[in-house]
Amino acid sequence: MIVVKVGGGQGIDLERVCEDVAQVFRSGQPLILLHGGNYETNQIAEQLGHPPEFVTSVSGIVSRRTDRRTLEIMEMVYAGKINKGIVELLQRYGANAVGLSGIDGRVLEGKRKDAIKIIKDGRRMILRDDYTGTVQKVNTHLLHLLLDNGYLPVLVPPAISFENEAINVDGDRAAAVVASAMGAEQLIILSNVPGLLKDFPDESTLIRHIPAARLDEFMQYADGRMKKKVMGASEALAGGVRRVVFADARIERPLQRALAGEGTVID
Amino acid sequence: MIVVKVGGGQGIDLERVCEDVAQVFRSGQPLILLHGGNYETNQIAEQLGHPPEFVTSVSGIVSRRTDRRTLEIMEMVYAGKINKGIVELLQRYGANAVGLSGIDGRVLEGKRKDAIKIIKDGRRMILRDDYTGTVQKVNTHLLHLLLDNGYLPVLVPPAISFENEAINVDGDRAAAVVASAMGAEQLIILSNVPGLLKDFPDESTLIRHIPAARLDEFMQYADGRMKKKVMGASEALAGGVRRVVFADARIERPLQRALAGEGTVID
Repeated sequence: MIVVKVGGGQGIDLERVCEDVAQVFRSGQPLILLHGGNYETNQIAEQLGHPPEFVTSVSGIVSRRTDRRTLEIMEMVYAGKINKGIVELLQRYGANAVGLSGIDGRVLEGKRKDAIKIIKDGRRMILRDDYTGTVQKVNTHLLHLLLDNGYLPVLVPPAISFENEAINVDGDRAAAVVASAMGAEQLIILSNVPGLLKDFPDESTLIRHIPAARLDEFMQYADGRMKKKVMGASEALAGGVRRVVFADARIERPLQRALAGEGTVID
Repeated sequence: MIVVKVGGGQGIDLERVCEDVAQVFRSGQPLILLHGGNYETNQIAEQLGHPPEFVTSVSGIVSRRTDRRTLEIMEMVYAGKINKGIVELLQRYGANAVGLSGIDGRVLEGKRKDAIKIIKDGRRMILRDDYTGTVQKVNTHLLHLLLDNGYLPVLVPPAISFENEAINVDGDRAAAVVASAMGAEQLIILSNVPGLLKDFPDESTLIRHIPAARLDEFMQYADGRMKKKVMGASEALAGGVRRVVFADARIERPLQRALAGEGTVID
């Protein structure tokens, strides 16, 4: 079993990714795909007159400010346009995909944060009407049911809170929880960079291997969204996943090349 | 087994509908829900600068003009915002719902129309870039798999064509095909009218009962979108469904009242 996360960043050719994912799945490799949709969500949110806002937590992590309207826009883009577009592409390439948000069948369940401590203009503030949280429980029964019957699950945030509210969760960290819960051997995180770079954005400074035990030391190289990928990798390894690979989604056969060890391999 | 279609028209309180659907499902009644989203799709399409367009076929049926951009907006609203909103409400009321577009697992598969003959400004025209069609095949295996494991399937257009393209299909007629394929005893069609009215929109002219064999005679009373509901009813009855009810979605306990015979009962 492998879990593949594909980012929602600019420059990713989802058709190429889906062709490769379908080929790997059809070869008999049990596989769960999880995807994002940040870039397009920002565009649609602007068009709908509710521009995106990002907040920085006191620990320095940047997240999308998610009021209820933002959550609905996210559902439109993530669970609507992008998820159905991916499922359509996978169908075209012969994989019988089933797209599920985390709400469906409570596939991704977790705790909604009561309050988020952020830094704004140098001052500490508390947000209370934010619909964000972290995945703590995976409906492995439903995922096994689909996989055992030949379906390729394609997961996407939002998740559902224990109190039955849709909540925004980080896709990379959600993929890590899914990989751990499903006992996956590998978690492949594809995005619009070739892996972890020592000197971002200089792609010639790609770090090719990180020993799992030393991952913490490499957090210093993680910029912006890469921080959550490193956190996700760390959580997946702690959860029993044998190998995590950060790899480039923009190339030909991105999944097969990541499985062959291209990118940043952490094990 | 019952199939319930709830419309996407103005004035429908989906929370009330979902509370009732969840209660019926939890009482042990196997149930599939199918929904629309016309009203909100029109609003979002306007906001995104791609206003809705409707075309009238040579046989007098009004349909949404569905170019690829419209289809993507439909996916955002139908499969994203509304489907996930309904699944969240059903979860809140204790039913473990799983939302699926027709593309997911090829639940609703059909033929894309090569060309649509329409009447525009009194002249006949042919549309060739329209992504519409009709459902001809239902993945009953996936629906039974979900139902047998305690999940409530919540279906929504688009469907998928035999050539793997997302296609817009009419929700009422899709519900009829699902009801026939699943061997449902009843198809309940909830919308923002109390049923078929002899003199639309005068609600006091509600037709309370139509003998199945005489349904064709009643097509004369069907205005606008009601035409497709009558066509759907006719197709469901021909497909072995014992009873079809057109009922009001805007009232308290709409499903239980429809099951008790309120609305227009066709059998």
